Amino acid sequence: MTAPLFNKVAIVGFGLIGSSIARCVAEYPGLANGVICVDRSQAVCDRVLALGLAQQAGTDPALVSQCDLVVLATPIGAFADLGAVIGPHLREGTILTDVGSVKQSVIRDIAPHVPDGVHFIPGHPLAGTEHSGPDSGFALLFKGRWCILTPTPGTNQAAVDRLSAFWSGCGSMIEVMEPGHHDRVLAITSHLPHLIAYTIVGTATDLEDHLQSEVIRFSATGFRDFTRIAASDPTMWRDIFLNNREAVLEVIQRFTEDLTALQRAIRWGEGDKLHELFTRTRAVRRSIIDAKQA
Amino acid sequence: MTAPLFNKVAIVGFGLIGSSIARCVAEYPGLANGVICVDRSQAVCDRVLALGLAQQAGTDPALVSQCDLVVLATPIGAFADLGAVIGPHLREGTILTDVGSVKQSVIRDIAPHVPDGVHFIPGHPLAGTEHSGPDSGFALLFKGRWCILTPTPGTNQAAVDRLSAFWSGCGSMIEVMEPGHHDRVLAITSHLPHLIAYTIVGTATDLEDHLQSEVIRFSATGFRDFTRIAASDPTMWRDIFLNNREAVLEVIQRFTEDLTALQRAIRWGEGDKLHELFTRTRAVRRSIIDAKQA
Ligand SMILES: NC(=O)c1ccc[n+]([C@@H]2O[C@H](COP(=O)([O-])OP(=O)(O)OC[C@H]3O[C@@H](n4cnc5c(N)ncnc54)[C@H](OP(=O)(O)O)[C@@H]3O)[C@@H](O)[C@H]2O)c1
Ligand SMILES: NC(=O)c1ccc[n+]([C@@H]2O[C@H](COP(=O)([O-])OP(=O)(O)OC[C@H]3O[C@@H](n4cnc5c(N)ncnc54)[C@H](OP(=O)(O)O)[C@@H]3O)[C@@H](O)[C@H]2O)c1
Repeated sequence: MTAPLFNKVAIVGFGLIGSSIARCVAEYPGLANGVICVDRSQAVCDRVLALGLAQQAGTDPALVSQCDLVVLATPIGAFADLGAVIGPHLREGTILTDVGSVKQSVIRDIAPHVPDGVHFIPGHPLAGTEHSGPDSGFALLFKGRWCILTPTPGTNQAAVDRLSAFWSGCGSMIEVMEPGHHDRVLAITSHLPHLIAYTIVGTATDLEDHLQSEVIRFSATGFRDFTRIAASDPTMWRDIFLNNREAVLEVIQRFTEDLTALQRAIRWGEGDKLHELFTRTRAVRRSIIDAKQA
Repeated sequence: MTAPLFNKVAIVGFGLIGSSIARCVAEYPGLANGVICVDRSQAVCDRVLALGLAQQAGTDPALVSQCDLVVLATPIGAFADLGAVIGPHLREGTILTDVGSVKQSVIRDIAPHVPDGVHFIPGHPLAGTEHSGPDSGFALLFKGRWCILTPTPGTNQAAVDRLSAFWSGCGSMIEVMEPGHHDRVLAITSHLPHLIAYTIVGTATDLEDHLQSEVIRFSATGFRDFTRIAASDPTMWRDIFLNNREAVLEVIQRFTEDLTALQRAIRWGEGDKLHELFTRTRAVRRSIIDAKQA
């Protein structure tokens, strides 16, 4: 039997993503010998131990010193402080990674605190649900989904390969990308759709009471899907928008222009324009189904 | 054994919705003795017979004269012409209904062609998928979903009750509503979300080629859901936007204001505002789950 990729994995912030990783370690052999939970909330630590998802759990950042893989999985707004608190406890040779949904800001916030000899490799699994907390995770979350790694130039290649092997073992496909590029792609595939869903559900909640209750009662396909997206964790999403500001503002701009054009087409009864766009967007769906990401 | 509610049901436009109704008639006893398919496309008629979904199928509108329930289920842009062609063939006592997604325009287009003694009761089942055509239907489509009826004042109550019983038999819950109110509620719960989904997927297809292929490849939760919505039938949706123009333009206006406010909050780093909205929208999801429409 070959040794697992890592001895002990510290997961800092043990919510949906963190607990899903822990479940992978428990269920798939060859990833690691054990998991240590570090969370600011004692209640989360207690729950994690009760669920048997970690062998040790606590609020003390020094716990990471026992681990050769440290995964930051809190909302990204906590990363700057976390880096400062955890940095001094990282052992030489440790791989430090994260699962944050924005990558340039994470590098800005973490890199200054990484000691020499520690390999910092930012990452982002493109997998999630609208649920939060250690009870909501599951080992299959990453199966068939991409995990994007955004190492800065000069990062130790063996370390990148080892982390890639870990994510492959969790079921992911790996892509290495430049951090700024990651943030632009995700601004359109994930951040803008979430912002729009939050907006539209917000618009509905501002309606007169009578209309509002009917909107909920007769919630049809469309709105229903948006409410699911708009039920995602408020803190996580606040942090994403604040930390991917430029890319998000740019896609909002493009989106608003396109919506204005459609609004005009509706106002002037330009059916052909609407039909042409709606036919084009249908093709995109087919591409996504072909790419097996549907 | 009591007689079924209707003898023969004509379904005009035999796509997702039409064929789902036909499947209900076939699978649930007590609805009708048989189904006649009227579709402008001979290929659809042939397919419907091959699937065994109707006892008779053809392109001749005169077929409706054999039926005591006639359901218009084409895209709503065809309704004015359809009304003119079908009106003369309707027998006294027949119930004429439709399943169109907009109700004021349908009344405008159909009512003038309805002969005396025929009961015209507009309807809209709040159930659908992004698929089209007679193969895509299924009997469970309407189960637990609302069907909204918008009869004009003075409509025969026994006829409304009989049509309600038919939809109940298909698994639906019935609500009677004023047509203009229906159009305003649906503008926000269905039409705006679809427009937004079409817009956002369109915005993505306008990106530079390189970025575009990555958007498809790394399509995450959010965008993925939007592409499914934006894969809905182009003709059906063009007709909806052209026929519910005022209500749709009004909600676009509200939505745009709200999005502008969020854009500003992101630009100025107003995290509290974002967090407050994202918390509010989460509660709406819970209401929808409680209303069993999730
Ligand atoms: N959810 C998704 O769809 C998704 C997908 C890909 C990536 N991500 C990224 O994954 C990360 C975690 O998301 P998640 O959905 O797993 O969140 P989650 O379920 O809300 O879990 C986050 C956990 O981190 C804890 N935490 C917060 N601040 C902390 C701190 N300063 N120190 C230690 N623990 C702290 C939280 O504790 P409290 O309960 O006390 O706040 C909670 O237990 C985020 O950065 C997000 O951008 C999420
Ligand atoms: N899909 C939904 O989610 C949904 C939900 C609720 C209500 N609705 C409403 O239901 C109606 C039908 O939608 P659907 O999704 O069932 O559409 P669909 O699957 O595209 O089927 C429409 C059928 O009507 C036929 N047709 C078009 N024009 C016609 C005409 N002038 N005379 C006779 N047949 C004609 C079409 O033939 P061709 O193939 O030759 O065009 C097609 O067979 C629409 O009014 C829509 O607003 C849809």
